[in-house]
Amino acid sequence: MYQTARIGIVSISDRASSGVYQDQGLPALKQWLTDALYNPLEFIERLIPDEQPVIEQALIELAAQCSLLLTTGGTGPAARDVTPEATLAIADKVLPGFGEQMRAVSLKYVPTAILSRQVGVVRGNCLILNLPGQPKAIKETLDGVFAAVPYGIDLIGGAYLETREDIVKAFRPKSAIKPSQTG
Amino acid sequence: MYQTARIGIVSISDRASSGVYQDQGLPALKQWLTDALYNPLEFIERLIPDEQPVIEQALIELAAQCSLLLTTGGTGPAARDVTPEATLAIADKVLPGFGEQMRAVSLKYVPTAILSRQVGVVRGNCLILNLPGQPKAIKETLDGVFAAVPYGIDLIGGAYLETREDIVKAFRPKSAIKPSQTG
Amino acid sequence: MYQTARIGIVSISDRASSGVYQDQGLPALKQWLTDALYNPLEFIERLIPDEQPVIEQALIELAAQCSLLLTTGGTGPAARDVTPEATLAIADKVLPGFGEQMRAVSLKYVPTAILSRQVGVVRGNCLILNLPGQPKAIKETLDGVFAAVPYGIDLIGGAYLETREDIVKAFRPKSAIKPSQTG
Repeated sequence: MYQTARIGIVSISDRASSGVYQDQGLPALKQWLTDALYNPLEFIERLIPDEQPVIEQALIELAAQCSLLLTTGGTGPAARDVTPEATLAIADKVLPGFGEQMRAVSLKYVPTAILSRQVGVVRGNCLILNLPGQPKAIKETLDGVFAAVPYGIDLIGGAYLETREDIVKAFRPKSAIKPSQTG
Repeated sequence: MYQTARIGIVSISDRASSGVYQDQGLPALKQWLTDALYNPLEFIERLIPDEQPVIEQALIELAAQCSLLLTTGGTGPAARDVTPEATLAIADKVLPGFGEQMRAVSLKYVPTAILSRQVGVVRGNCLILNLPGQPKAIKETLDGVFAAVPYGIDLIGGAYLETREDIVKAFRPKSAIKPSQTG
Repeated sequence: MYQTARIGIVSISDRASSGVYQDQGLPALKQWLTDALYNPLEFIERLIPDEQPVIEQALIELAAQCSLLLTTGGTGPAARDVTPEATLAIADKVLPGFGEQMRAVSLKYVPTAILSRQVGVVRGNCLILNLPGQPKAIKETLDGVFAAVPYGIDLIGGAYLETREDIVKAFRPKSAIKPSQTG
């Protein structure tokens, strides 16, 4: 029996939220998570514009209910890109390794990954990660850093996530592995 | 026809600005940029001491007129090194990927690159990067990160920079390339 | 004649400081430093709980007396992990390259290194580095970043450290090497 996990997914885009084009971020996030995790998943979704107070409010609401909260979009250098500002504003702790490593992973694919300002933070019992906007970059980034996510969520008191090893091999110290749930 | 680009270059050094030795930072910056860019360039130069208010004032003045602003010097751990403090103080947005990647590039050459506190930030329509003080390290750093600079400047509304591919191959998504200017 | 160096070592752990288990951090730090440095060393030690005001007080006291101050423990994402917060609160300057590179080194061994929030900072004439809690990770991290430490301490006016090259080869620019001390 795997523990049910509630995961917040937030797509942040002026154009997608106003219907100028079809949001591709939320489907990409759901697809990757469904493929990678054995846990039954309950998604809570938001599609919102690049407005810092709106983003902060969404993050606060979803972090209170979720073990993991992924955003997509709004991490570039343009004036309207404020996802990192909103995420930092509601954070209890910043985990700088996620920003560093998400950029390092993306840099293998594209030199402009340097321009991304994405961050990873903790709020309460929820780990929040800013992901890129493009479905391809979402997958590359999650492939690259997700191995550390389940143990990170353990440490902040969230759901016990179990991954499909052909997608991503989660790492936990031996003392943190709960063998009863993997059988 | 290439767009004329205005670029600020600021050398920050107590000794060079007081004439104790000859500044080598400004010539190194001009040389690299002239070699790397097709655009006609207008440089605005400053040679100033390691005084935070003086640096902030120079950055504010030049950022208002330039698409790109490069500093050299003052990024170490010593008490007089305050270039990053001045840069962060006048920033609208911090782009942590530049600091990370400039250090990662320099680390290939010298282990003490860890000690550099250089940052990249946006102010208005200007991208500001702190570079090392030594001409050799300036070249190594610009060789290593400049591929992301032209698109970064596009995103903040600055001049459309075009690079000589034998020096550095700028990366833009296809939708951001303006073919009319490259012929 | 090598210069005597005073080094602060601080183990931060609720359980070790209350006697629930034996502290392994301080012995690991002393072992590595004694192996790596030619200098006669004077250690000042503290074993304290994960309480931010207690950590800040210890760092302030030891930084006033030491050229180098190493902490172990308390850098994870859990609510009780507050070593980075305490270190940043008493810092004069942050050296982001240490956090980045310590995580990059640990990532070669374990994907959950992303979760570490360790920082390096300067306070007065003292370089302060947060290290992991496990003896094995302490050694891996110091092996990976110590080459930059002696010159970093030179630049802030601390003791002139000299390393055994079979353990770690310190890097200094030629102009910073004092040949009289290495004979």
